[in-house]
Amino acid sequence: MNYPNKIKKEKTYIDYKNRGMSLEEDINLTNEYYLNNDIAVIYKKPTPIQATEVGFEKSKKVITKGYFKTPSTTDYNGLYNGYYIDFEAKETKSKTAFPLSNIHNHQLKHIESVIRHKGIAFIIIRFSLLDTTYLLKGDDLINYISNNKAKSIPLPYIKEYGIVIKENYQPRLDYIKIVDNIIRGVNLWKNTNK
Amino acid sequence: MNYPNKIKKEKTYIDYKNRGMSLEEDINLTNEYYLNNDIAVIYKKPTPIQATEVGFEKSKKVITKGYFKTPSTTDYNGLYNGYYIDFEAKETKSKTAFPLSNIHNHQLKHIESVIRHKGIAFIIIRFSLLDTTYLLKGDDLINYISNNKAKSIPLPYIKEYGIVIKENYQPRLDYIKIVDNIIRGVNLWKNTNK
Repeated sequence: MNYPNKIKKEKTYIDYKNRGMSLEEDINLTNEYYLNNDIAVIYKKPTPIQATEVGFEKSKKVITKGYFKTPSTTDYNGLYNGYYIDFEAKETKSKTAFPLSNIHNHQLKHIESVIRHKGIAFIIIRFSLLDTTYLLKGDDLINYISNNKAKSIPLPYIKEYGIVIKENYQPRLDYIKIVDNIIRGVNLWKNTNK
Repeated sequence: MNYPNKIKKEKTYIDYKNRGMSLEEDINLTNEYYLNNDIAVIYKKPTPIQATEVGFEKSKKVITKGYFKTPSTTDYNGLYNGYYIDFEAKETKSKTAFPLSNIHNHQLKHIESVIRHKGIAFIIIRFSLLDTTYLLKGDDLINYISNNKAKSIPLPYIKEYGIVIKENYQPRLDYIKIVDNIIRGVNLWKNTNK
């Protein structure tokens, strides 16, 4: 029974992203709604896992040892009306600021790449204790980080530059409506600068 | 030691996608090249895994039981010059046709969705024994399947509608060059139909 005894087993599986669970669920339901109603094709990327030991259960392959890897990109991406959409979703219990420790450096670099290659990048931030969810555009996120040495983005900045995503019954978080305005804004900006 | 003895363990980890390994490696290297040279932002999606048992090794989370899930989309997606790019890559040992059993039905539906929402979808097919790799546009793939009841796409069809991706040193498989022509074709088509 070659089972390494240094691994302490848990009785039940607890998702380590539990904190962000309800926002994640809301977004997954919203994406399902977009898919079923043929509005947008946006998926959550699977969590990358490195399987180091694999066996068989009957004829089915099963991982017997695997590690969670740090994702190199954001969690969600897809397609809306010809536009490439890319975002990360995070929940915080803070009432005053969004802690930047929530976003990895390579995720920021990814967001910068998406902007450079003419995609639409943003972050969805939920202040769970304030019951409010914001969409903050990628460039507003990058701008703040480039110009400030703070370890968090204060709520007033998010209130000024972000857009509130209202919660509804269906779709739960209609963020595509806001993306639509961003697209119109982008085109407007393009037209006035031509 | 609560380890289920119905799991037969293997000594070494063998990737079940081994058959497609070299094409996958070529594409991963190509995507890395595109990323490092700021040409495109395209990634392979992680294989979805359902972790049913998780424990701890020191303070690190480790999966002690997990299953491979069937992906609901294609393997690769990303962004090139404002365009949403989406594709699947498959290798076959056949010398005469591409077996359609290689593509799941939900992947075909996904490709159709991408086309409908104005993304660029295609499939990269390598005939490994013929040493030739083709890019076949999503609509040519769907067209063939909709109009034929065959279980494979004959090589002559792929030769007629597909485009050969030549192998180079760097990037290994410069498929973006072909995508560029597709984009120009799309725009040309749009212009002539206005």
